[in-house]
Amino acid sequence: MTQYVYRFGGGVDDKGEGNKNLLGGKGANLDGMAAIGLPVPPGFTITTEVCTAYYANGEAFPDGLTDQVAKGIAHIEGVTGKSFGDPANPLLVSVRSGARVSMPGMMDTVLNLGLNDVTVEGLAASSGDARFAWDSYRRFIQMYADVVLGLDHHAFEDALEIAKEDRGYFLDTELQANDLIELVGEYKSLVEAEWGKPFPQDVNEQLWGAVGAVFASWESDRAKVYRRLNSIPGDWGTAVNVQAMVFGNMGDTSATGVAFTRDPATGENAYYGEYLINAQGEDVVAGIRTPQYLTKAAREAAGAKPLSMEEAMPEAYAELARVFDTLERHYRDMQDIEFTVERGKLWMLQTRSGKRTAKAALKIAVDMAAEGLISQEEAVLRVDPMALDQLLHPTLDPQAPRDVLTKGLPASPGAASGKIVFDADTAEKWNDRGEAVILVRVETSPEDIHGMHAARGILTARGGMTSHAAVVARGMGRPCVSGAGSLAIDNAAKLLRVSGRELKEGDIITIDGATGEVMAGAVPTLQPELVGDFGTLMEWADGSRRMKVRANAETPLDAQTARDFGAEGIGLCRTEHMFFDASRITAVRQMILAEDERGRRAALDKLLPEQRKDFIGIFEVMAGLPVTIRLLDPPLHEFLPTQEADFAEVAEAAGVGIETLKQRASELHEFNPMLGHRGCRLGVTYPEIYEMQARAIFEAACALPTAPVPEIMIPLVGTRRELELMKEVVEKAAEAVFAEQGKRIDYLVGTMIELPRAALMADEIAEVGAFFSFGTNDLTQTTLGVSRDDAARFLIHYVDKGIYATDPFVSLDVEGVGQLIEIAATKGRKTRPDIKLGICGEHGGDPASIAFCEQTGLDYVSASPYRVPIARLAAAQAALRNR
Amino acid sequence: MTQYVYRFGGGVDDKGEGNKNLLGGKGANLDGMAAIGLPVPPGFTITTEVCTAYYANGEAFPDGLTDQVAKGIAHIEGVTGKSFGDPANPLLVSVRSGARVSMPGMMDTVLNLGLNDVTVEGLAASSGDARFAWDSYRRFIQMYADVVLGLDHHAFEDALEIAKEDRGYFLDTELQANDLIELVGEYKSLVEAEWGKPFPQDVNEQLWGAVGAVFASWESDRAKVYRRLNSIPGDWGTAVNVQAMVFGNMGDTSATGVAFTRDPATGENAYYGEYLINAQGEDVVAGIRTPQYLTKAAREAAGAKPLSMEEAMPEAYAELARVFDTLERHYRDMQDIEFTVERGKLWMLQTRSGKRTAKAALKIAVDMAAEGLISQEEAVLRVDPMALDQLLHPTLDPQAPRDVLTKGLPASPGAASGKIVFDADTAEKWNDRGEAVILVRVETSPEDIHGMHAARGILTARGGMTSHAAVVARGMGRPCVSGAGSLAIDNAAKLLRVSGRELKEGDIITIDGATGEVMAGAVPTLQPELVGDFGTLMEWADGSRRMKVRANAETPLDAQTARDFGAEGIGLCRTEHMFFDASRITAVRQMILAEDERGRRAALDKLLPEQRKDFIGIFEVMAGLPVTIRLLDPPLHEFLPTQEADFAEVAEAAGVGIETLKQRASELHEFNPMLGHRGCRLGVTYPEIYEMQARAIFEAACALPTAPVPEIMIPLVGTRRELELMKEVVEKAAEAVFAEQGKRIDYLVGTMIELPRAALMADEIAEVGAFFSFGTNDLTQTTLGVSRDDAARFLIHYVDKGIYATDPFVSLDVEGVGQLIEIAATKGRKTRPDIKLGICGEHGGDPASIAFCEQTGLDYVSASPYRVPIARLAAAQAALRNR
Repeated sequence: MTQYVYRFGGGVDDKGEGNKNLLGGKGANLDGMAAIGLPVPPGFTITTEVCTAYYANGEAFPDGLTDQVAKGIAHIEGVTGKSFGDPANPLLVSVRSGARVSMPGMMDTVLNLGLNDVTVEGLAASSGDARFAWDSYRRFIQMYADVVLGLDHHAFEDALEIAKEDRGYFLDTELQANDLIELVGEYKSLVEAEWGKPFPQDVNEQLWGAVGAVFASWESDRAKVYRRLNSIPGDWGTAVNVQAMVFGNMGDTSATGVAFTRDPATGENAYYGEYLINAQGEDVVAGIRTPQYLTKAAREAAGAKPLSMEEAMPEAYAELARVFDTLERHYRDMQDIEFTVERGKLWMLQTRSGKRTAKAALKIAVDMAAEGLISQEEAVLRVDPMALDQLLHPTLDPQAPRDVLTKGLPASPGAASGKIVFDADTAEKWNDRGEAVILVRVETSPEDIHGMHAARGILTARGGMTSHAAVVARGMGRPCVSGAGSLAIDNAAKLLRVSGRELKEGDIITIDGATGEVMAGAVPTLQPELVGDFGTLMEWADGSRRMKVRANAETPLDAQTARDFGAEGIGLCRTEHMFFDASRITAVRQMILAEDERGRRAALDKLLPEQRKDFIGIFEVMAGLPVTIRLLDPPLHEFLPTQEADFAEVAEAAGVGIETLKQRASELHEFNPMLGHRGCRLGVTYPEIYEMQARAIFEAACALPTAPVPEIMIPLVGTRRELELMKEVVEKAAEAVFAEQGKRIDYLVGTMIELPRAALMADEIAEVGAFFSFGTNDLTQTTLGVSRDDAARFLIHYVDKGIYATDPFVSLDVEGVGQLIEIAATKGRKTRPDIKLGICGEHGGDPASIAFCEQTGLDYVSASPYRVPIARLAAAQAALRNR
Repeated sequence: MTQYVYRFGGGVDDKGEGNKNLLGGKGANLDGMAAIGLPVPPGFTITTEVCTAYYANGEAFPDGLTDQVAKGIAHIEGVTGKSFGDPANPLLVSVRSGARVSMPGMMDTVLNLGLNDVTVEGLAASSGDARFAWDSYRRFIQMYADVVLGLDHHAFEDALEIAKEDRGYFLDTELQANDLIELVGEYKSLVEAEWGKPFPQDVNEQLWGAVGAVFASWESDRAKVYRRLNSIPGDWGTAVNVQAMVFGNMGDTSATGVAFTRDPATGENAYYGEYLINAQGEDVVAGIRTPQYLTKAAREAAGAKPLSMEEAMPEAYAELARVFDTLERHYRDMQDIEFTVERGKLWMLQTRSGKRTAKAALKIAVDMAAEGLISQEEAVLRVDPMALDQLLHPTLDPQAPRDVLTKGLPASPGAASGKIVFDADTAEKWNDRGEAVILVRVETSPEDIHGMHAARGILTARGGMTSHAAVVARGMGRPCVSGAGSLAIDNAAKLLRVSGRELKEGDIITIDGATGEVMAGAVPTLQPELVGDFGTLMEWADGSRRMKVRANAETPLDAQTARDFGAEGIGLCRTEHMFFDASRITAVRQMILAEDERGRRAALDKLLPEQRKDFIGIFEVMAGLPVTIRLLDPPLHEFLPTQEADFAEVAEAAGVGIETLKQRASELHEFNPMLGHRGCRLGVTYPEIYEMQARAIFEAACALPTAPVPEIMIPLVGTRRELELMKEVVEKAAEAVFAEQGKRIDYLVGTMIELPRAALMADEIAEVGAFFSFGTNDLTQTTLGVSRDDAARFLIHYVDKGIYATDPFVSLDVEGVGQLIEIAATKGRKTRPDIKLGICGEHGGDPASIAFCEQTGLDYVSASPYRVPIARLAAAQAALRNR
């Protein structure tokens, strides 16, 4: 019999610790905490396999689950001494989702389950608090109606408001037991009216309903969007955790809170968190009441009045601090925990590795290695390479004048300027048309995810450092200022009022997630500093790295940025952008319009000195390092005008009639330019173009005292013969220049592997080419038959429906395209064992793709300059994981 | 030491027989004839390897060749008793090219080599004919100057004409020995003036010059064009045959001729040929003098006066007839031979399997099998499947009125109508723009090849059945009427005068290659009869065939044609053409313009009954056979108008504003539609389209008494999941229809394999799909990264430069695309051992590609209806060769 249920707590341990794939993150760590003796309310976890089976079987639970769940309930009953559905001493449980990775706010939870018209009386008696019992029942009905029965929660909220108004109350807490009994009656009537059946009184029916609802939440639209944005496969499923309830809302000796063992924003080694007295956990997360500080130091630093937990509940706090230390030693990482204090007794409800900013991740990793808690190699593995992105982009110039409008919480670091938008759809739309936007909301909800993703930054009027907006923004690496309470947002009028000023949709603001400041207009920025923890970690990473990291760069400025970021050469220097330069485009067009080779050569003669200058600039920056230069690649029509208005001007500049120009443009038109007359096909039909480019490269290399090693790359090769012909052209140019200059330099001729045929014929091609550079952008386009420019219309559907796990242009399609890369690497090495292999598509800056490159044994990856540190770290991690 | 030279004749045999790859066709068969005791002038062959080495070494002969050639010359000297360069009894030799396959008229020959100012006197003395000796020397200088020295031949022709005029002669034969001695002097002066050096007197220098010239002719432009058109690899090279001269021009007991052992036009088992008394071989081939018939019967049938060889030279003829029979028994095929009679003695100069019309090939194969000369299986292997094309196309309706202008020789069968053009370039240009043309020339030369290829038919005023025009046209399968002597062609004025009428360029004529008739205007045609020899051979072929042959058809008419041609099902029924139908396009456009699924469904409801009707029509024709139906494939924008003029009309018909229509068209625009939102990507985003199509298929199948087996094919699949999703849509539609109709039918759901990723992931995809059909058109486009629509600009260069051996859209790229097909077949069978595998790209009708399909073990090929018999024969041959 498959084990579907794993128990924990009260000395019973089904050994689920650490098995996150099966028990989900929450379940695996509840088990773990219980196993090391921490105070965890007893419970059990229904595995993720049940969720997967549930969907595979047309939404039916597998055989045998009922019995195992019954045993789980019996376990909780045994530990607590309470009985599920018992009128005298009823057991109440929470039912929570728990996937392999945290999906904050995405999925559903039901608390206080096990209450009905009878057990509520038992709870009142056993707790000695009738008001608490009826309030719990009220909350349970409302939550169950919303989450499990799918009824509209507004009706319940309205009924609560009316109950208060009728009695002249202002706060929920003013409602007395009798009021709540009445309200429960109203809630039950509401359920029966909406749902058509009475509120379920059978506690087992309640339980199975809640389990089904958790599974259903896995397939909700918002969960799917979150999975798509975070590359989480849909078939992982969620586990369900059923656990004895503990109550933070049993008066002033009770509390609930969330905390981090270190500061998740700065990484500082100090407890960090928030708590609320007499509250249930969701009150903290939802950001409805503003929570208080955990430590005295933090409270004082913020200049806040309400007592910290350290001051208000010193014993529980001391216990919590001991738990923190135990957890960090046990999990050897910064932990994000949830706890409840029930009448003075601390209970741990969750622990997990805490999300953190890139800066914090760096500091924590470096600190923990210094503390001896982890090794340097583990430290390297601890930092998500993509998170570095936050550190590598500009921050606000501290010297620049700032027109500060208000200040909120520094919820996610980084700074951003953009146009104000007030809803997620507009954010997405404006971003699609290339505009930077800041999403401004009262508070965010899971429905806003796509807008948060589209925005450069997020600003909210409500919510704390652990509010939805803050957590999600940190995960995405977007700057966020939360809880800027002085903002008055009028969604209908698309207006924002603050400090007596009015800003409307489209006005530009700047937010600084490091300080919480919100400023009018755009504030200038500074380059990040790449020293300190960053420098330390990158040094450790470089020590573990096998693959070289190069950059894709085609100007001296790009090349310098890349070198500053640690690039060890240029992996892709495109030459066509040089052709587009305004000062040269006329000569390029004259070449295209020439009637014959003589005419083309005359135009190319004008381009030669310009192109030589380009290469001299790049070679100077990259002195001593390899520079891979790709000869002309795009189809020639890209250089001709497309707008009617431009034809006359271009015709005159190029010295031809407008009709000639139009006719040539129409002759050059292609139905599928991606698959047309481009790449080495240009070199085969017009060898004089490649000859000029090769000459420019060699003349430039010869002109410098420290010659680089040019690696001349022929694009779009599909056959050995193409490379052979183009290599001849390059070698002839080289010999001519060497003879003229009386000087030789080393160089290589190789090719892009960007067509499936090239990969399949790599053994033959490697007989001619000294290196392969995988052009994974085009290789993905041809292997999948997907035009990147045209894919938007179906790509999102494809990821949503699980056809692609992720966007194959962002992260390499290892299954498909990866096979071709492996074939090419194997075949290439067969005929040329020392062949140099690299990747220069945009995947060269994607950690998952870099891991694949390491496994395949490539020699280097090449990424855009800002991605070079990411690639360095990802390559180190891949090497460490591959050991 | 590599053997570069193979000797033959006079009892010496270096065993070169049959080794065509090494000795070329001519050399291998000269050796062969000598070996079986036929009268062959002694000689030797320089191998094709020498040619390949010559080009690999920068046009230098390999070491050791000189010695081996010297031994070859010594061999000829030994047999003939003459000495090369000997003043008294000089040996003269011919130097001829000889590639693996015949390339008629493409390459160069030098005759009478070994003559100089001294040996010419020796030849005069030894032959006792000074005129003959000096005429031979004159011919040699002229030929050598043209072929080896590359001088303009017109100067020599002019000198000859002047010599005749000066003396008041009309014919060359009137020139006496003294006249010729003077002419030789003038020729030598011409050579020295043009070439800058005296005519070479050293016979060895002559010999090596001629050998180099033969090699040079292999790389001539015309040879390259011929190779491209005939798929002959450039690295095969040519052999060189050096042989003792024999003379057909030593008076009236000498003659020369060409002959076939059976009639190459009809296949009739009767000797067939032409000869000329007192002539050298090139006089016959060049078509300058009109040759006489070989047999009495042929002469009488033609009503000609001049005596046949059978009558004029009975002894030599009897010897020749014996040789014919020996050759047919030895080579077991119809032979095409060249012979010379020197003073009554027959010499064989060449034999090879004779080119023949498709009709003749069929008859000869079937007859030889009946005669017991070859087996039925050999007969099947004897007919070039592509040649059947000639038989499968219409012939002139004998009942139709014919406005006959003149009659020439029936040089290549078939009938064609088209516009008159007078030069090859115009033929090519007009053909490119889609016009049928007839190329009309006085006589054709190798420079006309590209125009002959572009023309529907060829008409010449001069030349016999073995003239250049006739031989090449038969090889190409183009109808040809040659030697229509009453035509007066004015190339300058682009006029044709015949029978008092004048036709100009662009006027339409019809030629009948079966009768030699030339008619004004277009004459209606009849379908070919598929019985007799054709039926017999196809029956034998079907008996040897393993693969099934299906057709690509999408109308009942196409389906019927295919079935008549023997198709065993439909391998590709495209459904988009049904959408383009004028009566439906409005509903299609309404669907595209609909705002939501409801709108699309409303439009699809209108299409459903129409699409059902389509399938009923096809299913009726194909009752009991499998029919593979591909669901909608092209991107939706293909259904919208592109011309400004059409927008208003379409907008009104579709019931939307013109701006809406334009906006939708612009939204749907794609940069690379080949790689865009098409194929199953449409089905994934708009499942209702595939649902309608599936419903139409099942409703049609249920409506018929004999249900076919629909094989529903999902296009452009790249992942298992796509096929899974689309299969669900199809299955749901099937179950709905079966429930409505109270009836079930068998069907399969499978996929095209047309993306590299699909081939690489075939194991997973086969878990879902019951069959794979290789869509090799798209698979070639994606694997090679070549858009078929855009490739014209570089494809010819690519074939010329040896990058592609042949156009990969005509004959499958076995090396590259073939690897993916093999990977897919292997992986598909791994997870579904009984998977049905077929090919439905245009390669399904190409014999070389079919051979690959047989090797890969595919279950069927699918070709266009007219190609079905070709595919049946090619599949049979592939099966036989694979045994």
